[in-house]
Amino acid sequence: MRTTAAVAVEAGKPLEIMDVNLDGPREGEVLVEIKATGLCHTDDFTLSGADPEGLFPAILGHEGAGVVLEVGPGVKSLQPGDHVIPLYTPECRECDYCLNPKTNLCQSIRSTQGQGLMPDGTSRFSMLDGTPILHYMGCSTFSNHTVLPEIALAKVRKDAPFDKICYIGCGVTTGIGAVINTAKVEIGSTAIVFGLGGIGLNVIQGLRLAGADQIVGVDLNPGKIPMAEKFGMTHFVNPNDVEGDLVAHLVELTGGGGDYTFDATGNVGVMRTALEAAHKGWGESIVIGVAPAGAEISTRPFQLVTGRSWRGTAFGGARGRTDVPQIVDWYMDGKIEIDPMITHTLKLEDINKGFEMMHAGESIRSVVVY
Amino acid sequence: MRTTAAVAVEAGKPLEIMDVNLDGPREGEVLVEIKATGLCHTDDFTLSGADPEGLFPAILGHEGAGVVLEVGPGVKSLQPGDHVIPLYTPECRECDYCLNPKTNLCQSIRSTQGQGLMPDGTSRFSMLDGTPILHYMGCSTFSNHTVLPEIALAKVRKDAPFDKICYIGCGVTTGIGAVINTAKVEIGSTAIVFGLGGIGLNVIQGLRLAGADQIVGVDLNPGKIPMAEKFGMTHFVNPNDVEGDLVAHLVELTGGGGDYTFDATGNVGVMRTALEAAHKGWGESIVIGVAPAGAEISTRPFQLVTGRSWRGTAFGGARGRTDVPQIVDWYMDGKIEIDPMITHTLKLEDINKGFEMMHAGESIRSVVVY
Ligand SMILES: [Zn+2]
Ligand SMILES: [Zn+2]
Ligand SMILES: [Zn+2]
Ligand SMILES: [Zn+2]
Repeated sequence: MRTTAAVAVEAGKPLEIMDVNLDGPREGEVLVEIKATGLCHTDDFTLSGADPEGLFPAILGHEGAGVVLEVGPGVKSLQPGDHVIPLYTPECRECDYCLNPKTNLCQSIRSTQGQGLMPDGTSRFSMLDGTPILHYMGCSTFSNHTVLPEIALAKVRKDAPFDKICYIGCGVTTGIGAVINTAKVEIGSTAIVFGLGGIGLNVIQGLRLAGADQIVGVDLNPGKIPMAEKFGMTHFVNPNDVEGDLVAHLVELTGGGGDYTFDATGNVGVMRTALEAAHKGWGESIVIGVAPAGAEISTRPFQLVTGRSWRGTAFGGARGRTDVPQIVDWYMDGKIEIDPMITHTLKLEDINKGFEMMHAGESIRSVVVY
Repeated sequence: MRTTAAVAVEAGKPLEIMDVNLDGPREGEVLVEIKATGLCHTDDFTLSGADPEGLFPAILGHEGAGVVLEVGPGVKSLQPGDHVIPLYTPECRECDYCLNPKTNLCQSIRSTQGQGLMPDGTSRFSMLDGTPILHYMGCSTFSNHTVLPEIALAKVRKDAPFDKICYIGCGVTTGIGAVINTAKVEIGSTAIVFGLGGIGLNVIQGLRLAGADQIVGVDLNPGKIPMAEKFGMTHFVNPNDVEGDLVAHLVELTGGGGDYTFDATGNVGVMRTALEAAHKGWGESIVIGVAPAGAEISTRPFQLVTGRSWRGTAFGGARGRTDVPQIVDWYMDGKIEIDPMITHTLKLEDINKGFEMMHAGESIRSVVVY
C-alpha cells in the first residue's frame, strides 16, 4: 500500500512529506493506522544528527496512537479495529529481561530495532523509487500507516482520544513511570524535580499521584511555574535566584534533601546536582534525561557511601503492554491530566513547524493529527 | 585512671606507646577494657595525613572487642562484665536515621565524634602533662582502656574470642553487611568482587552465605586466589591477563554482567569498571572502598538509564547494636569464618610493625592483643 509520511531524508534537514510504499504485515506483525503522534525531543535529537546511532533515510516518530487495520500470521492478541499505542520498548513476556521483575528492557527485538528494521531484518517502508526507508525505534509514527511487531503494541480502550493518549506512548509514561515503577515513591515523600518541561511535568503529576508531601521543581524559567503548580509542584527554585550553593539551598528547603530526586534535563551537571541534593542515608536520584553523546556524570564516591543511590530509567520502567493500558485508564478516570500539556495540534504537513516551536521553547507538546 | 595507648602524635609519624590519663565515664558513657583490636586501612589513612579530616594528637583504632568495667549515670543496657564491640557507627534507636529502615547512619553523636570528642564536647584522654588527646571514630581502641557512649557499644556473647571478633567491629561487618544489608543479594545471584583484601574476602563469604551461584573475584595479585577460594570465590580474573576490554570479559564470563558488583579497592577507576560490569537492566554496583580525598567517580549516564544502579555502603549498612551480636553468633556457629583472615597477632608495642606489614601487603588482618 501507499501512505503519507514525514521522512527524515538526512541528518540536519527538515522532514519531507511524501508518499511512501508500505509492505503489509508479516509473521507476528501488525499494520496500524496512526491517528495522532507527539513530537518528542528524541526525534529531534536524531533528526539533528547529534545521535551517533541515527540512521537515514528513516521515518521518525515514536509517540503515537492508532487503530489496527490488519494482522499478520500468528498474531493472537490483536485484531483489526483494536486501538493501540506503539511501544518503542516492547514486551515479549518471554525473554530473560521480561521474566526478570527488576527491569522493563525487553531485549527480544533489540538488535534489529536498533538497525531500523523489523525483527526479520528487513524494512516495510520504501520510497516510490524503491529506495528503502528505515523504521525508527520500532515505531515510525510520523507515517499515517506503519507496521509494528505484535509485542510492540499496547491494546487500549476505544473511548480514549488518540490526540491525547498518543503522549502516553513516551512522555507521560516516562515521567509517571519514573516515579511509580523506578523510584517506587512512597506516600509522604519529599521529591525534587530538575527541569519542568514535558517529562518534568509528568514526574510531578506522578509524584502527586504517589502521595508525595513536598514536590520541589527546579528550572531556570519562572514562566514554567503556573503549569508546574497545576500538576502538583509545591515549591519552586530558580537556580539563578539562589545565592551560594544550590545543593545546600535544596537540602535546607527539603529538611535534609529529597527522598527522591529526578533529572529531567539531560544535562550531566544537573544530574550531579540532583544526586547531591538527595537525602543522606536514603535519597535516590533517578536520571531520566538523555545526555549528549560522550557526556559523563561524576561525583565523589562519598556521596554514595553516605547512602545516596544513583539510578536511571527508560520508558519509566514500564512494561508497555501491561502498564500503558492502565495509564490510559488513569487518564480517562481523571487521575492524571494530559490535555494542558498538549499545547499545539498540527497537520502532518506542518510537522517541521512543530520542531521549530520545540526549539523556541514555545510548546510543551505538539501533536500531529492525521 | 592511667592506661597504656598507642598515640598518633602527629600525621605521618609512627604511633607512640605511652601511658595516658583516662577520665571515668560520664552520663550515658561506659568504660571498656579493650582486649583486642584490629589494624584497619582507615587507621592507616588517617595516620598518614591523607585524611583531610584527621585530627592530632589522637588515639586511633576502631575495630576492637573488650569488657565493660564501669558504667556512667543513666546507662541501662550494659553493666560491668558485659562483653562488647565498639561501634564507630552508633545506633541510638531514636534519631531520624535510626527510625528510617533505609539507613544505618545514626546521626545522634555525629558532630562531636567527627571532632574527636565525646557527645558532651570533651575528651576523656590526656597526656600525663595534661595535653588533651582526641578520640577517633568514637572508639580509640588503640588504648587498653577507653570510654564510649552506651549507644556505640554492641553487647555480645561471652564465649566469643576477643582476638577474632574484634574484626567484626569493622572489616567483617563491612564486607558481609554490604552483601546482606545493602545489596540484599538473593539466592542464585551472580556477583563480581573487585579487590581481594580483607574487605573483599568478607564480601565473598557474605555472598556464599547469601547463596550466590557465581562469585567472581578480580585482583591484580594471583597470590590471593587460594584464600579467596577458601571463602567462596568460584572464578578469578586478573585484569593483567585479560586481552582487550575488562568489562567485556567480565560481562561474557557472567553471562551479561554481575547481578551485583562490589568495589573493595577504593580506586575510582575500579569503581567505574564495577558499575559497567553490572548487568544491564538490573545490575547493582556497591561502592565499599574509601577513595582518596577529592577523587571522583564518573560514567556515562547511559549506564544508569539502561538499568544499572550505583550505590554505596558504610559499615555494611549494619545497625551495630542489633546486627553485630548476630554476626558474632554466625561466627560462633561456623556460618562465617574469621580465623584465617587474622594473619598476625601482635603486642601493642609492636603496633607500628603491623602497619608496616599492611603496607607491604604481608597481612590480611593484624590484631593487637592487650
Ligand atoms: Zn520520546
Ligand atoms: Zn522480552
Ligand atoms: Zn575499619
Ligand atoms: Zn540514631
